[in-house]
Amino acid sequence: MDELFCYFCKTAFPLDLLRTFCLECGEPLLFREKDQKRRVYWEQEDSLQKFREFLPLEGIMPELVMGTGNTPLIHCENLMGKFSLPSLYAKNEAQNPTGSFKDRGTLMAVQKAVQRGMERIGTVSTGNMAASTAAFGARAGLKTVILVKEDTGREKLLSTAVFQPQLIKIEGDYGRLFRKSYEIGLSKSIYFMNSVDPLRMEGYKITAFEIYGQLNRTVPDYVFVPVSAGGHIIGLMRAFLMLKKNGFCEKIPKFIGIQAEGCAPIAQAFDKKSRKVERIHRADTIAHAISNPDPPGGSIALDMISKNGGLVISVSDHEIIRAQHLLAVHEGLFVLPASATTLAGLLKIHKRRDIALDKICVIILTGTGLKGFENLNLDLTGIPHYGLDELESHIE
Amino acid sequence: MDELFCYFCKTAFPLDLLRTFCLECGEPLLFREKDQKRRVYWEQEDSLQKFREFLPLEGIMPELVMGTGNTPLIHCENLMGKFSLPSLYAKNEAQNPTGSFKDRGTLMAVQKAVQRGMERIGTVSTGNMAASTAAFGARAGLKTVILVKEDTGREKLLSTAVFQPQLIKIEGDYGRLFRKSYEIGLSKSIYFMNSVDPLRMEGYKITAFEIYGQLNRTVPDYVFVPVSAGGHIIGLMRAFLMLKKNGFCEKIPKFIGIQAEGCAPIAQAFDKKSRKVERIHRADTIAHAISNPDPPGGSIALDMISKNGGLVISVSDHEIIRAQHLLAVHEGLFVLPASATTLAGLLKIHKRRDIALDKICVIILTGTGLKGFENLNLDLTGIPHYGLDELESHIE
Repeated sequence: MDELFCYFCKTAFPLDLLRTFCLECGEPLLFREKDQKRRVYWEQEDSLQKFREFLPLEGIMPELVMGTGNTPLIHCENLMGKFSLPSLYAKNEAQNPTGSFKDRGTLMAVQKAVQRGMERIGTVSTGNMAASTAAFGARAGLKTVILVKEDTGREKLLSTAVFQPQLIKIEGDYGRLFRKSYEIGLSKSIYFMNSVDPLRMEGYKITAFEIYGQLNRTVPDYVFVPVSAGGHIIGLMRAFLMLKKNGFCEKIPKFIGIQAEGCAPIAQAFDKKSRKVERIHRADTIAHAISNPDPPGGSIALDMISKNGGLVISVSDHEIIRAQHLLAVHEGLFVLPASATTLAGLLKIHKRRDIALDKICVIILTGTGLKGFENLNLDLTGIPHYGLDELESHIE
Repeated sequence: MDELFCYFCKTAFPLDLLRTFCLECGEPLLFREKDQKRRVYWEQEDSLQKFREFLPLEGIMPELVMGTGNTPLIHCENLMGKFSLPSLYAKNEAQNPTGSFKDRGTLMAVQKAVQRGMERIGTVSTGNMAASTAAFGARAGLKTVILVKEDTGREKLLSTAVFQPQLIKIEGDYGRLFRKSYEIGLSKSIYFMNSVDPLRMEGYKITAFEIYGQLNRTVPDYVFVPVSAGGHIIGLMRAFLMLKKNGFCEKIPKFIGIQAEGCAPIAQAFDKKSRKVERIHRADTIAHAISNPDPPGGSIALDMISKNGGLVISVSDHEIIRAQHLLAVHEGLFVLPASATTLAGLLKIHKRRDIALDKICVIILTGTGLKGFENLNLDLTGIPHYGLDELESHIE
């Protein structure tokens, strides 16, 4: 029996796929962890199998997994050398099936949708979650409704449209659309698995468990995560807390949430030492994937990060572009601007504060750059163009 | 001591990274397998470690691996049901770091380049190999020269340019450019790791070993592979032959090489029962990634496939587009047209010949669709566009 609870008012609710929020205080609901001693099945290759006792699963449906998870933790020695950084690892979520961390959450949610007999699913997204939900929906044979903002980029539209969901562009306020989707879900029995869906957050936990395994069963000192709606960082932090509670580690990493300056409601609340995140009214950043002016999980994330001794900071578009460039040129990693915020944030903190060089830092690279060509500031007209016979003289 | 040999004239050569071809007959050289009893280290997670006795490695450089390999083998039950197909699996090479199977070959070649003290590498490519070589070159800190055709698509240029190699567009014949690159390599000490590089072909072997492991240590009955220069299918076939020779299996799969009708020199030679592949003079297909009118490994591939009892067939652009659509809509897999040729070929053979339904077929999906938006035949202008208040009435 799956049970959810409200982080703030503690009210308990049975899992209902059509209700994501607490009926008392409106905050997103989280899964209640059953009181039990847990073990990890290290001998298993698949992460869902390995960490199954940490997840609310009713059996695993391997046909839906599609190679989700088991992403690499890449040691970034070139950047460490260049900037005298502490030990730096990049968890490359771009290698998930549709190219972003969203697949982990979608897999958990779609599996439960099938097991509960839902016939229709949906999501509200700026891009990555749209493609992910459409792909897993197609695979599971579910009818899928995808609602996107009218200014969603061509590549994000195409990488969703290929799976042939019912795809609709919506004019108007994104925050209102987000709330409206649940009304429609209730009236038409469509499971809207949006950003702070409790099952999504359970899926994001697996990333943290994998990091623990990949670091030879230790936890890093700092984890840098781009923060948009808040669901991703909440899932990651809950996973480390769970590892600690179950005796797998003695401390949990400090979490550094990163936002883009042009859309930083959580960082602003953090700076003001406010307990509540206020929506902002104009978002303007090239990091579209984390441009959420009214983050539904913002207050939970803020509270968890504050209690954790972590930080929420913001970085400029200029810093983001530079970090995106550094990851490509020094480590061979091509990621979206939203992912590059993590390196931008690390460099900022490294410059102005002290992270001792013996510490272990992990940046979470949330999505592949292959869906963000539109924002790449690269001048293709500058590529030289030679005939075969003149080629040799142009190679130094 | 690494030794190469010529498949046809049997001449032996020591490995020289600047020479890919036999000095006697001009055919691409292959690695000589040392005579030894081999074991698989099944307890290892990383494929290079697991299959290290099957590969010409001088130690593994984990910092270069970047999450290459360990791609999923996806059971395509939806397509099986829809078309009454035999058991169908898709090996999804799109989940490699730069989104294509090329990463496996690049990893092997770059590793050897570093171990041999080479300072510069290069490649001649239509796109996927360019991005792969540029990414691994950046990671290894090598100077990298990338030569592309002048009509290379924007997304493939951008996904290469982000790593900041010396990127040059070349006018003129691709076959001549291919040969010219080796001249430049010799004169300027640049290791051109092109399509039929012997180390690339060793890297492609790993895909076959993984399939064997993923099918519970059995081999499939049929393997469908897109064929361009020939290097990929040669590597895959050599791997299964090696498994057989070392007592891991009793037979090897039948290989079905697939080409696009608009560029099918190997399929044409196969049809004519010719032993030699003749270059064609005009290539025209949407499957750009396999549009090679003068395949350097064509004759070896043709000979191996013929002796194997396999086939080389071609499929039309129309069949390719349909297969690309089917993979997305029924299995949630978004791949390049070149990858979709495999399903197109399977459907064609299934219709006109008999593959018994108890057989196991594997299609190799070579690259992600995220680098091929330009060719997607999707009409984005048809996406409906509503205000928030009218939305509900438009969802059935």
